[in-house]
Amino acid sequence: MPASDPSQAPLGVFDSGVGGLTVVRALRELMPQESIVYLGDTARVPYGSKSPDTIRRFSVEDTQFLMGHGVKAVVVACNTATAHALPLLQATFRVPVIGVIEPGVEATLSDPRCERVGIMGTAGTIRSSAYQYALAMRRPGLQIHASATPLLVPFIEEGWIDHPALKLVLRQYLEPLLEKGIDTLMLGCTHYPLLMPVLKKMLGKKVRLVDSASTCAAHTLRVLEEQKLLRRARSKPVLDIYLTDLSEQAEAMTRRFLGADFGRVKKASL
Amino acid sequence: MPASDPSQAPLGVFDSGVGGLTVVRALRELMPQESIVYLGDTARVPYGSKSPDTIRRFSVEDTQFLMGHGVKAVVVACNTATAHALPLLQATFRVPVIGVIEPGVEATLSDPRCERVGIMGTAGTIRSSAYQYALAMRRPGLQIHASATPLLVPFIEEGWIDHPALKLVLRQYLEPLLEKGIDTLMLGCTHYPLLMPVLKKMLGKKVRLVDSASTCAAHTLRVLEEQKLLRRARSKPVLDIYLTDLSEQAEAMTRRFLGADFGRVKKASL
Repeated sequence: MPASDPSQAPLGVFDSGVGGLTVVRALRELMPQESIVYLGDTARVPYGSKSPDTIRRFSVEDTQFLMGHGVKAVVVACNTATAHALPLLQATFRVPVIGVIEPGVEATLSDPRCERVGIMGTAGTIRSSAYQYALAMRRPGLQIHASATPLLVPFIEEGWIDHPALKLVLRQYLEPLLEKGIDTLMLGCTHYPLLMPVLKKMLGKKVRLVDSASTCAAHTLRVLEEQKLLRRARSKPVLDIYLTDLSEQAEAMTRRFLGADFGRVKKASL
Repeated sequence: MPASDPSQAPLGVFDSGVGGLTVVRALRELMPQESIVYLGDTARVPYGSKSPDTIRRFSVEDTQFLMGHGVKAVVVACNTATAHALPLLQATFRVPVIGVIEPGVEATLSDPRCERVGIMGTAGTIRSSAYQYALAMRRPGLQIHASATPLLVPFIEEGWIDHPALKLVLRQYLEPLLEKGIDTLMLGCTHYPLLMPVLKKMLGKKVRLVDSASTCAAHTLRVLEEQKLLRRARSKPVLDIYLTDLSEQAEAMTRRFLGADFGRVKKASL
């Protein structure tokens, strides 16, 4: 095996903040032998309320940072960045660039009985219509109901994921979707997997939940297999986490989103 | 009057986003003859969750932008930036730099009966201890109870300022302060003036409310008077609003926070 074997290189993952660590968690569960370099742009989080031009500029800078660390593929673990910047990133960089939207759409449509889909996401993701377009392209006639739900990220970051106020907020956001009789709810933000328990309780079994993190990890595994980029474990894999802003709060959230203790968060300058 | 009369120059105001427009609103009510250049760093909002180093770097860049527009004084209409960067800005720039914390502290202590003060603000503002320190320096023995209230800004930006979920959130944030028997509540964030109606309803007359916007405007008037920088109205004053990121949402919030229609928001690159 030559030293330059690209399959030995780490996987690059970026997000506007720490939410993308739910994708890292899913990747590590599925591919424990892979090394990962994660970049969270916590100095400029959130992307969801920003304009497409600004989101594209930030996403290119994030990807350049990962390329500088020699990654073999880039996972855009942010729905807003995927919605606005994925085609640009795929055209610009010479490694596979994988987003979070297509995998969720594929998983949603893998059930042929799916007829009415609800989507929750940040203002930027919903306004981009990326989910709506990807679903409608593949299954014309599908009923699609999208809803911007900007208060969910702040509640998740505050750690109030079982608070009565969160339930009131969720009820308000879900009501118009449930009135349309959705059978599937897509969680179009990498923060939202942390709401799975409360959403399952509120929705029961009548609505199928599709999240960005586990579907993206499964898709990444397929891409790495196809491109013969899966790492054959020789040495212990490495996880490096870089944040563009280090605060106590960001480091505490790192542990919460990753679902594991992690001591070595590093500061990145873009 | 020579062309270079500095009193004719505009006042510069910056904030991490659009919240500082509550200060602009208060400035215009008090000094309708002043021209104002406002910078909202909406591309990097919020500052409240970021580290002191990053907040200082952003604040210097914001002030440099205003200096480039020939301002006669700078109002830091952001509690987080005031808490971390005011001394640095005052030492660096050659015009008066006015923050939002001292004016609120002065207004609070102007009532000699004030004994127990509560403070609500972002995580960054509260963690900085800037309010706590400024109060304790002036009145040793004062009881001070500070509370980080990070969910309030998202609710205000969503426009849910009378929503039952907001009231639950406020109740949770206020409870420990009320248990301490506070007689004064300082609103340590320039977004919070929009919560005045709901807070007045919840607190009644037993707690005095002190906000950042009106107290800062009154202080700015005194500084301009002392330095003979008040503009004598000859021509119509100009209000220029620059945002580092333009989105529909930011422009809609501009109207809401300014309390007036405003058509000419411009894009700034720092």
